[in-house]
Amino acid sequence: MEKINLTKIDGGVCAPLGFKAYGIHSGLRKNTDRLDLAMIKADKQCTAAGVFTKNKVFAAPVGVTREHLENGTAQVVICNSGNANACTPDGYEKANATCAALAETLGIPEDDVIVCSTGVIGLSMDISPILNGIPTLLSSLDPTAVGSDKAATAIMTTDTKKKEFSYSFEVGGKTVKIGGICKGSGMIHPNMGTMLCFITTDCAISSSVLRTALLYAVKDTYNMVTVDGDTSTNDTVTVMASGLAGNTEICCTECEEYKEFAEALKHLCMDMALAIAADGEGATKLLICNVTGAKSDDDARILAKAVVSSSLVKTAMYGADANWGRIICALGYSGADIDTSKINITFVSAEGVLPVCKNGGSYPFDEDFAKKVLTRDKIEINCDMNDGEFAASAFGCDLTYEYVRINGDYRS
Amino acid sequence: MEKINLTKIDGGVCAPLGFKAYGIHSGLRKNTDRLDLAMIKADKQCTAAGVFTKNKVFAAPVGVTREHLENGTAQVVICNSGNANACTPDGYEKANATCAALAETLGIPEDDVIVCSTGVIGLSMDISPILNGIPTLLSSLDPTAVGSDKAATAIMTTDTKKKEFSYSFEVGGKTVKIGGICKGSGMIHPNMGTMLCFITTDCAISSSVLRTALLYAVKDTYNMVTVDGDTSTNDTVTVMASGLAGNTEICCTECEEYKEFAEALKHLCMDMALAIAADGEGATKLLICNVTGAKSDDDARILAKAVVSSSLVKTAMYGADANWGRIICALGYSGADIDTSKINITFVSAEGVLPVCKNGGSYPFDEDFAKKVLTRDKIEINCDMNDGEFAASAFGCDLTYEYVRINGDYRS
Repeated sequence: MEKINLTKIDGGVCAPLGFKAYGIHSGLRKNTDRLDLAMIKADKQCTAAGVFTKNKVFAAPVGVTREHLENGTAQVVICNSGNANACTPDGYEKANATCAALAETLGIPEDDVIVCSTGVIGLSMDISPILNGIPTLLSSLDPTAVGSDKAATAIMTTDTKKKEFSYSFEVGGKTVKIGGICKGSGMIHPNMGTMLCFITTDCAISSSVLRTALLYAVKDTYNMVTVDGDTSTNDTVTVMASGLAGNTEICCTECEEYKEFAEALKHLCMDMALAIAADGEGATKLLICNVTGAKSDDDARILAKAVVSSSLVKTAMYGADANWGRIICALGYSGADIDTSKINITFVSAEGVLPVCKNGGSYPFDEDFAKKVLTRDKIEINCDMNDGEFAASAFGCDLTYEYVRINGDYRS
Repeated sequence: MEKINLTKIDGGVCAPLGFKAYGIHSGLRKNTDRLDLAMIKADKQCTAAGVFTKNKVFAAPVGVTREHLENGTAQVVICNSGNANACTPDGYEKANATCAALAETLGIPEDDVIVCSTGVIGLSMDISPILNGIPTLLSSLDPTAVGSDKAATAIMTTDTKKKEFSYSFEVGGKTVKIGGICKGSGMIHPNMGTMLCFITTDCAISSSVLRTALLYAVKDTYNMVTVDGDTSTNDTVTVMASGLAGNTEICCTECEEYKEFAEALKHLCMDMALAIAADGEGATKLLICNVTGAKSDDDARILAKAVVSSSLVKTAMYGADANWGRIICALGYSGADIDTSKINITFVSAEGVLPVCKNGGSYPFDEDFAKKVLTRDKIEINCDMNDGEFAASAFGCDLTYEYVRINGDYRS
């Protein structure tokens, strides 16, 4: 990643100029303590872009939003939790009715509405709580950090932590802000956006360039996150740009200004990707696999993903067990072109550096020190393939009792 | 599968004429109650064949045995548990030394020895317990069910049940016997043999035809089993044919006799594949996904495997939760060519038949009945794609707390 000067700021999706947000309990969830409906609204039409799940089975709101973003504009996001609005006969009808109601109230085109849902698949969704909730949401919209907070809370499902980030940076000498909220937890796997994530910025940028920047940012971040190997039906990442920062509109991808914006967007996406991995369902540890020395970019990505996807690696990390055999095993079956005899594997955490495998074979290590290294909550697994010049990192988490508990009876 | 007349008999790998077996505690494992060294010996040289892990990182004994079976003959299997003899600098030296010692004692060619190991990866193996154990094993070899039992027990790692099957059937009017022992549990995933499995038969069959029959049998059985998505470094399936049944040697794959033998071999492999799936690490339930109506054979296999591989499906089945959305989600991301709107999904167990999804959407069902259906220990998930004529079945198990416990600290 290129060097960029970012300043962490408060405000989440409300940090950039021209955005308000809020979240309420609409009644979609039975538990009245839980917010279940979020809105992010721009003061005026924005340029916008989105990336979506590659699952052939995708939820109705994914289909609707993908179509709505084809013209590169949007003004408002409405997102519910508690029901995925996927795989039901009336899914499109419900998603479209939601957009129609909101667009009519706001007096904006229907295709400027981004609609998203997350929750149980296959359950017909009662949208009356959403329709009834719209006026309340609109009257509550807040341009401060409070609004972003509420929205970030309302989109959570099995997440244990709210995920919200924002930065300011310079584009062509003007201060630009960018913010995002997201939710992850289960069904997190490449490829794609891999969760719900809503980004706002006040950067002036054309919709086609915004789209290019989003694809660039997603490739090394969300698309390298895996929690359980399942690609969700609902994954969506959208970005809306209000253009209020006062910079000259970014219209091509060759200029310095594009780079400044794209790197900031990527940085924000990386924050969110790591937060999603660390808060994977039941996770106690963030796992980062850094592959270096691979023969190709594809190989590097495949290798890194194979390691953080392996159930055996994930359980070993949960148990703080330096069972590197499972790592080399995963590298072996990944499908990448490798030379086993050149592989070095090293664990790294805040506790220190622990080489465990040299040239494909065991490298003596102290078990007590290994336990200490692997008991930390962020473990890097460095795999040097010594066989080329390509590198990639993938992000995941350990596999725990809690994952099984959460998913053994998700619907109740 | 074609109709065949098989009679279940006792004896495991000792059921066919011309084989003895045994298992002892050699000292490779610290726990003296656990057998750790198995031998299966034919009275004379057999025709033989094997299939092996496709993992690029494979254990030394896999490399050695693959080479030994190139000439299509073998006479003895020696297999230890407790150490995989994989990813250590002296692995080949150790595997070869084991073969040399056994071959010399028996006065047979070194390449008639099949050597296998299972256990921890990356730990240098002390083979003195094996070398010291060979005389004891040889003097204990038993041609009855007892010998097979002991061998089946000695190859177990995290298996909770010994896996042993044997049948008699007719080939060209002569009675032929076939028997097998296997071990599975963790690191079970297509493609390949996917575990350790040793098969014996007294059928007279050429080595090249035996190899064809083994590949045929493995395709729909072992290669459709997945426990945790990890392809082991050590997976091996071998078959030795003593030829003592008195049938005319099967030398081509066109004749009726070939079909009789190949179907019997496939049936035996299916028994073992299902036993391995049902006894997956921590499993409480056998899951079978039957896909029908797929557009191609490949698609059918990919779809069935995607369902039984999904962590979210596996945990839902553990929780007896009819969350079919996760099944259609897995079908969607499998990579197969599908039409979501045609998919029907039905759960079947000894309790009854429960349709849950019609034409890609929800189909009303009674939650109490669903709970009953899914609380049984064998669940079939029938996915009719209604989009072609191809079918395939994949075999797996649920994902449980116990899987996490077992793998969180395997080495201690």
